[in-house]
Amino acid sequence: MILLSDEEIRVGGKPLDDYLVSVAILFNQGKDRVILKGRGNNISKAVALYNALKNRMGEALELVDVRIGSEDLRGKIVSYIEIEVRRAY
Amino acid sequence: MILLSDEEIRVGGKPLDDYLVSVAILFNQGKDRVILKGRGNNISKAVALYNALKNRMGEALELVDVRIGSEDLRGKIVSYIEIEVRRAY
Repeated sequence: MILLSDEEIRVGGKPLDDYLVSVAILFNQGKDRVILKGRGNNISKAVALYNALKNRMGEALELVDVRIGSEDLRGKIVSYIEIEVRRAY
Repeated sequence: MILLSDEEIRVGGKPLDDYLVSVAILFNQGKDRVILKGRGNNISKAVALYNALKNRMGEALELVDVRIGSEDLRGKIVSYIEIEVRRAY
């Protein structure tokens, strides 16, 4: 279930550190759940982002769910991953 | 839980169709669970493989679990995904 307080980070072409900062800002804003989403080749990067977060936050970061599938993006079918994480404190 | 009858498909540099054939062979051999594993940039390809399988098999393919994390591969920390699927019939 997607809660109203969820926020999604769309992982794209920017350096990984940019997304780390984006997630940190959301947590600092009081969001407790964040979804890391990657499509196509950025799926690997979304997993790398999760690992970088886990490496820094340790027990404070909880993996809630990992969803994979495909979706229609402007007429093209693309693979995606949604990694739902929670700040556990 | 990893059952003894599990088989792992390591997704690497080969064309996607090669892995589709490998999974089909395992199911035909009577394996009911298969793990699609990808590391680093091949994580995206493992998800693409799942979607290609799902597209072909429909309801006959069930997504059991998706695990992500990092592991030590000859001294280098790499991200991985393990997609566990089950033939549902």
